[in-house]
Amino acid sequence: MIGLTEILENIGTFAFAISGIRLAAKKDFDLFGAYVVGLVTAIGGGTIRDLCIGETPFWMLNANYLIWSGVALLFVILFRKYLIHLNITFFIFDTIGLALFTVVGIEKTLGAGYDFWVAIVMGCITGAAGGVFRDIFINEIPLIFRKEIYAIACIIGGFVYYVCHLTGVDNSWSQILCAFSVAATRIIAVRFRIGLPHIKGEQE
Amino acid sequence: MIGLTEILENIGTFAFAISGIRLAAKKDFDLFGAYVVGLVTAIGGGTIRDLCIGETPFWMLNANYLIWSGVALLFVILFRKYLIHLNITFFIFDTIGLALFTVVGIEKTLGAGYDFWVAIVMGCITGAAGGVFRDIFINEIPLIFRKEIYAIACIIGGFVYYVCHLTGVDNSWSQILCAFSVAATRIIAVRFRIGLPHIKGEQE
Amino acid sequence: MIGLTEILENIGTFAFAISGIRLAAKKDFDLFGAYVVGLVTAIGGGTIRDLCIGETPFWMLNANYLIWSGVALLFVILFRKYLIHLNITFFIFDTIGLALFTVVGIEKTLGAGYDFWVAIVMGCITGAAGGVFRDIFINEIPLIFRKEIYAIACIIGGFVYYVCHLTGVDNSWSQILCAFSVAATRIIAVRFRIGLPHIKGEQE
Repeated sequence: MIGLTEILENIGTFAFAISGIRLAAKKDFDLFGAYVVGLVTAIGGGTIRDLCIGETPFWMLNANYLIWSGVALLFVILFRKYLIHLNITFFIFDTIGLALFTVVGIEKTLGAGYDFWVAIVMGCITGAAGGVFRDIFINEIPLIFRKEIYAIACIIGGFVYYVCHLTGVDNSWSQILCAFSVAATRIIAVRFRIGLPHIKGEQE
Repeated sequence: MIGLTEILENIGTFAFAISGIRLAAKKDFDLFGAYVVGLVTAIGGGTIRDLCIGETPFWMLNANYLIWSGVALLFVILFRKYLIHLNITFFIFDTIGLALFTVVGIEKTLGAGYDFWVAIVMGCITGAAGGVFRDIFINEIPLIFRKEIYAIACIIGGFVYYVCHLTGVDNSWSQILCAFSVAATRIIAVRFRIGLPHIKGEQE
Repeated sequence: MIGLTEILENIGTFAFAISGIRLAAKKDFDLFGAYVVGLVTAIGGGTIRDLCIGETPFWMLNANYLIWSGVALLFVILFRKYLIHLNITFFIFDTIGLALFTVVGIEKTLGAGYDFWVAIVMGCITGAAGGVFRDIFINEIPLIFRKEIYAIACIIGGFVYYVCHLTGVDNSWSQILCAFSVAATRIIAVRFRIGLPHIKGEQE
């Protein structure tokens, strides 16, 4: 099980970094800039979580995350022309990352002794805040605030986890069901083009 | 007294969140995005303060702040058409929030054992940094860097607190005088359209 | 030696703040906004480093950094018309700051017990992250992601430090060689207009 989590986490890091690097490429970043945007997309959320719960940022304890972001950079450089054909693959990887990061965020926050509602918030931050950093770095309004069902998927996953917890479901199963509901929410939302309603301005 | 502080703090949170949500609405955010911008406007400053002084971010210990931001979202949705008539009310609430957050920031930093000048900086961050986050999230240059007497009011309040402290004024009175001078500075500045001079560019 | 480090650190703070204030002036910031941008350019990187390694942000323990940022503001106001003639001086000061901040970042991270690769990352963050904050505050894409050899100079300096460490070079000499290679890399890059290759977008 540990082996699987690690593989999934690396896939998630890779996919998150790819999304940052591709957007950086559209904005004419240099290689270093693209790497940083990719890295921050991958590790930004978990870093905020760790600072808030008083732990050392996870990526400072294991060089994997820096390395996988570098692999993502190399991948984008080498396969630039084929990336567009891999969009569905990246979407799946990204969704795996989102689901897993949410579970990791919830677990780690509960492990540090916080309330469940804090853990759900931290699960959401772990999954979604990296994309906010990415969009701030490329000077755009964060995508997840306007377009996609993304952070909401993390929150739904968090509630599923909580219900499992209340009803005495075994911990491994809680994690699997949480991850599954994050991924399912996101996939259904994208497949059927479901988005949140927008808030209306006053001038209308 | 505790009861009053809590009521004022909730009013401040509500007013800060309203200001974030209204600006998000102008930029076509969805409900989640608007909520996050409102929340970050309300809790962003205190979070930076708590991370800097080595405490757990205050909103992780009490769900009130997340709830009041949700109430603010609901309020904006329901009373969208009447908000503009409430501008003066919001201004008063926002000013109460600014004054109170400044006092809370100073108190907490002094309580953690830092020098008074650090406490004044932290009072200012507690009151004003949330608005900086808000403006970064909606991709605008922070308003408080260009238009309003806002953070300066916190700093003036901080000096008043310091003078009270030096002259042996009782702690409760120091807090009240500090809050009062923050609010008075802001109200006078807005009423008489007083702003800071701008820094001149080199090209002129 | 301590005396020299302190002088160099103040020069670096001054130069970093100047760069922030000058850019803020171009964007019509008021005096407070310009001061904050200058200050954050100077202390932002070290603050991120200190939060990540679990230390109190350095500027909270010594008012020097706030004061030197104020001196920089005064300097820009008073000598506005002559600043452009001082560009080479500022470049040298800024390079001294970059070199020194990198060394300080590496030292402090190693002192806190982290691996060498973490220290190199933190040296880079200490030197370069302030400029990222600066550019986010003035609502521009960070310069170091697109134009200049800047953060890469810190990383090269970090590797030089590491090689010194591996080969048993004395600590003072390691620091001097590290700082020298940061400065040399930056100066050579600017002198010969060397930049990193840009990452290519997919649409081409």
